[in-house]
Amino acid sequence: MKKRLFTPGPTMVPESILLEMAAPIIHHRSPEYTELFKRVNEGLRYLFQTENDVLTFTSSGTGGMEAAVVNLLSAGDKVLVVRGGKFGERWGEICEAYGVRVEPLDVEWGHAVDPDTIARKLKTVPGIKAVFVTQSETSTGVLNDIKTIGEIVNDHPALLVVDAITGIGAHKLLTDQWRLDVVVAGSQKGLMLPPGLAFVSVSERAWEAVKSSNLPRYYWNFSKAKTALSKGQNPYTPAVSLLVGLRRSLEMIKEEGLEEIWERHHRHALATREAVRALGLKIFAKEPSNILTIVDLSSTIDGKKLRGILSRKYGIMVAGGQGRLEGKVIRISHMGYVDDFDILTAVSALEMALTDLGWSFESGAGVAAAQRILAEHRSR
Amino acid sequence: MKKRLFTPGPTMVPESILLEMAAPIIHHRSPEYTELFKRVNEGLRYLFQTENDVLTFTSSGTGGMEAAVVNLLSAGDKVLVVRGGKFGERWGEICEAYGVRVEPLDVEWGHAVDPDTIARKLKTVPGIKAVFVTQSETSTGVLNDIKTIGEIVNDHPALLVVDAITGIGAHKLLTDQWRLDVVVAGSQKGLMLPPGLAFVSVSERAWEAVKSSNLPRYYWNFSKAKTALSKGQNPYTPAVSLLVGLRRSLEMIKEEGLEEIWERHHRHALATREAVRALGLKIFAKEPSNILTIVDLSSTIDGKKLRGILSRKYGIMVAGGQGRLEGKVIRISHMGYVDDFDILTAVSALEMALTDLGWSFESGAGVAAAQRILAEHRSR
Repeated sequence: MKKRLFTPGPTMVPESILLEMAAPIIHHRSPEYTELFKRVNEGLRYLFQTENDVLTFTSSGTGGMEAAVVNLLSAGDKVLVVRGGKFGERWGEICEAYGVRVEPLDVEWGHAVDPDTIARKLKTVPGIKAVFVTQSETSTGVLNDIKTIGEIVNDHPALLVVDAITGIGAHKLLTDQWRLDVVVAGSQKGLMLPPGLAFVSVSERAWEAVKSSNLPRYYWNFSKAKTALSKGQNPYTPAVSLLVGLRRSLEMIKEEGLEEIWERHHRHALATREAVRALGLKIFAKEPSNILTIVDLSSTIDGKKLRGILSRKYGIMVAGGQGRLEGKVIRISHMGYVDDFDILTAVSALEMALTDLGWSFESGAGVAAAQRILAEHRSR
Repeated sequence: MKKRLFTPGPTMVPESILLEMAAPIIHHRSPEYTELFKRVNEGLRYLFQTENDVLTFTSSGTGGMEAAVVNLLSAGDKVLVVRGGKFGERWGEICEAYGVRVEPLDVEWGHAVDPDTIARKLKTVPGIKAVFVTQSETSTGVLNDIKTIGEIVNDHPALLVVDAITGIGAHKLLTDQWRLDVVVAGSQKGLMLPPGLAFVSVSERAWEAVKSSNLPRYYWNFSKAKTALSKGQNPYTPAVSLLVGLRRSLEMIKEEGLEEIWERHHRHALATREAVRALGLKIFAKEPSNILTIVDLSSTIDGKKLRGILSRKYGIMVAGGQGRLEGKVIRISHMGYVDDFDILTAVSALEMALTDLGWSFESGAGVAAAQRILAEHRSR
């Protein structure tokens, strides 16, 4: 059966990248690798829209998050953590594992954080060293307004640390213009690669914080990564084959253009949401991200059954709900290497699986709604 | 130009594995992945010769080393670190980064540690919690006698932690029989894969230590990895494409058989060493590992020039000296996906490059010596 990944990481990897990664392996202490790594770093700075260093770690995205915590802070420091889903909570868990005191800002699942509540916390809670936020919260399908949060935090000495793991390369993110101190990304999302690489951009202000941070670190050491980077190298053997793929993926991103990519994700998100509504179902997120659509099954459809049918009968892989949403939603990703016809495929499969489960709706209504939105946006 | 890697990691990756990793990516929360991960774990237990859990981390081998330190120890603990090269020193650096007190056992570069000196240290220095050693020290080409070290440490409450990153899948290593508490391995060595995965086996005794360890950890958390493993899962998105390759590489290892693989590496090491001597050069290591041959250039040949010619003129990539050996040696690896003809190729290229540099020897003497050893060992 032809299988298609509509999961929020890993996402589908372009065939040309898969084949490029199948070339004979190169050595990471060679002029060839140094040339590759330099080009990759130019591409990463374009992707992040920054002049800052972007450090590369061989790890899952979570490793990049841990790297941010252990390089910026000291035990006993106080930080503000926006917790509106599983990934916001992860920021808090990592900080607590290192003895960093967490001032939580809890947000109801499905809602974006109101930037004003961050401003109030910064005013009323003294001594906050850093603010941790998530751009696109994959567990709730919500997009947080990082631009406005950036404006607020920049009036304060606290650093702003952004988990853009599922956001970057899909949603607008301007690291320098929005003055984001640290931005974390991963390979298996908008970058259209297999998992295994994490990227962390570090501002001048953040480098100052690194100097006074005393949390223990070895593998995640920013300073060592920066020194190696200046020579076109990594401190430890990097995942070379993924870096070969990364060079190609960053070229593809440059060729298409970030503005075009953001617009494509917007178009696909709108089309998917409209299709879901046309089938009589709701969107879980109140301020939805363009990365993925979380379909609220309103306790009337069993999410696990629906996913099973989509996967086994139609070869369409979507994600289930996480934490308190388990079984209650499905999460359809439209991130990365996705075109209009992929969206129509996902919507068609959803219609077929819902029909199998006895859900009643006007057959074809979802596909028609999606097609209409896609056509409107393409003709602009 | 046809290029060949004779570097001690990354090593050459079999074409069939490269192509298998180029298949469309699968999702890590799917029955298909769980099945794959279960088979991989059976294969890893065979490779490690253990019934212990073998935990998988998406990272370089160094990440696996750091994981061992932060899960077994507490700040202020005292440990014995055998430092006979760059990788032994790394154990010490990681421990110190976490406030673990290092009792060093320094060994002259080029020599294996005398196991009796470990016994003496354990007797005379009170309160040692763990002993850190390196099986095959890649910076000096030395093999340490892990079996005997295991017998010594097992008479003592200290845990034995072995860096087998370049040893495993090439040199005999019997985790359970030798009672090794923690063994660390990496993907880009004997496992014939690209870099990006680290593996750590954990004994019952080591699991007891995990309970009382209080060093901070999140990404490297053993307990979380074990819980996920019991469900055929990983705590964080693993490097899926490398795991697909790992399944195939472990199958290949099982098909060839560990005993056969150890014998092959032994044969190749003997042949390479004999060839080097026939060219009038010396072997740096006194107790040499079968992983790689370090050619001592006796300050008469410039190591950097020799490597440059090998690489640019002949497409043969070997490694240079590390630390105090920079420029003074070349390191020729014969680890992983290497056959007899590859050895003859490496030796031929060495002869040609030495001739280019004006080194005088009987032309063909190296190849003849290698062929003789290979033939002798094949006919057994």
